[in-house]
Amino acid sequence: MRSTQIRRHAMARQERAVRTRRTILEAAAAVFDERGYTSATIGEILERAGVTKGALYFHFGSKEELALGVFAEQLAISLPPQSSKLQELVDSGLVLALRLRTEPLVRASVGLALDQGALGLDRTPAFGMWIDQTTRTLTEAKAGGELLPHVDPTETAELLVASFSGTQLLSQLRCQRQDLEHRVTVLFHHMLPGVAVPAVLARLDITPDRAGRLLAEGRLLPVEGDVAEVG
Amino acid sequence: MRSTQIRRHAMARQERAVRTRRTILEAAAAVFDERGYTSATIGEILERAGVTKGALYFHFGSKEELALGVFAEQLAISLPPQSSKLQELVDSGLVLALRLRTEPLVRASVGLALDQGALGLDRTPAFGMWIDQTTRTLTEAKAGGELLPHVDPTETAELLVASFSGTQLLSQLRCQRQDLEHRVTVLFHHMLPGVAVPAVLARLDITPDRAGRLLAEGRLLPVEGDVAEVG
Repeated sequence: MRSTQIRRHAMARQERAVRTRRTILEAAAAVFDERGYTSATIGEILERAGVTKGALYFHFGSKEELALGVFAEQLAISLPPQSSKLQELVDSGLVLALRLRTEPLVRASVGLALDQGALGLDRTPAFGMWIDQTTRTLTEAKAGGELLPHVDPTETAELLVASFSGTQLLSQLRCQRQDLEHRVTVLFHHMLPGVAVPAVLARLDITPDRAGRLLAEGRLLPVEGDVAEVG
Repeated sequence: MRSTQIRRHAMARQERAVRTRRTILEAAAAVFDERGYTSATIGEILERAGVTKGALYFHFGSKEELALGVFAEQLAISLPPQSSKLQELVDSGLVLALRLRTEPLVRASVGLALDQGALGLDRTPAFGMWIDQTTRTLTEAKAGGELLPHVDPTETAELLVASFSGTQLLSQLRCQRQDLEHRVTVLFHHMLPGVAVPAVLARLDITPDRAGRLLAEGRLLPVEGDVAEVG
């Protein structure tokens, strides 16, 4: 009985820590978004989050670590496995488009990565994490015979990430990202014929409402483990 | 004789005006680049350019008009016509990559278009001008039977411009755009199989040194007429 109680206490404490961490990240994202990274101060983030200085520094050692935590939120979701790795790649793009449209924290993450005025902030990790994940998926797709023989997974991953970034920026300027999921399907429809073997290409589901359907089916889960590691 | 003299005077005056305009744009680009659009003042631009207030306001009515003039520099170059419109599209991308690497004014133009902190600046014209030009080229390519039947020139143009923007941003973060021409060939090699009919695709020259060759052959000319109109 006693050990169950201890475990229950530990779990409650961990859940609280996850919630606090999330509150701090959301506050940091909002302050970065409104004031820009350079002008934002830890004091403002503390005030917005309504947590103690100790709680903040328990999770994040500096303003830069807060930015890294915000960056990591782009990828902090687990997608349902598919028989085709290229379908998983398409799903990750469409889900990111949906989250950019609906989650302020994910939006701030991308805004921060594109903020040219962010003095002293190394913005390469934001792209690096995302490129690494895409390269892994494409390498698996290649091993499974889904890619045309000349395709270099790293080169294609860098192009996809770069093109997605530019696409979300144009969608933001044009209509506050309301058409982002459609634009991401256009991106995949243009890119994949130069990448996928025809038999795989023909079976991919590249439709703007796919991410919404996965979400409605409850098949998108936050990656709490990964999130906790980053802080 | 007299009319020849008048004409010569008029031409000298016009050449001087073109040079002054260019000096002002270069100064504006440098100040926007260093201070950001929001903090930059007309006074700083005047000081940097070493021209009178009257000269500046003759060419540009406001800080926003200066920004529009800087934007327009991206496109202010005339490329040699090719038998394939898709080759002209490839050339325009490769030449822009070369100019981004070598011309500070073009670099500032793109920096300004991507500057999320540029308060009160409508950044859509920077993309709009570029998308319009790309759409025109693709519409001509379609009329000439170079495109696959399902291709929508506007949709493809928006995707190409967005993908190019993201690509130059990643290249800038990674290596100050030293590999931009290579990345742009990767972009075209991925996109064009989904766009071009195979017989045209097979004959395109998509090589990183193509823009340098056109430049060495003296086949890239500034479009002074267009530039003068924008101001």
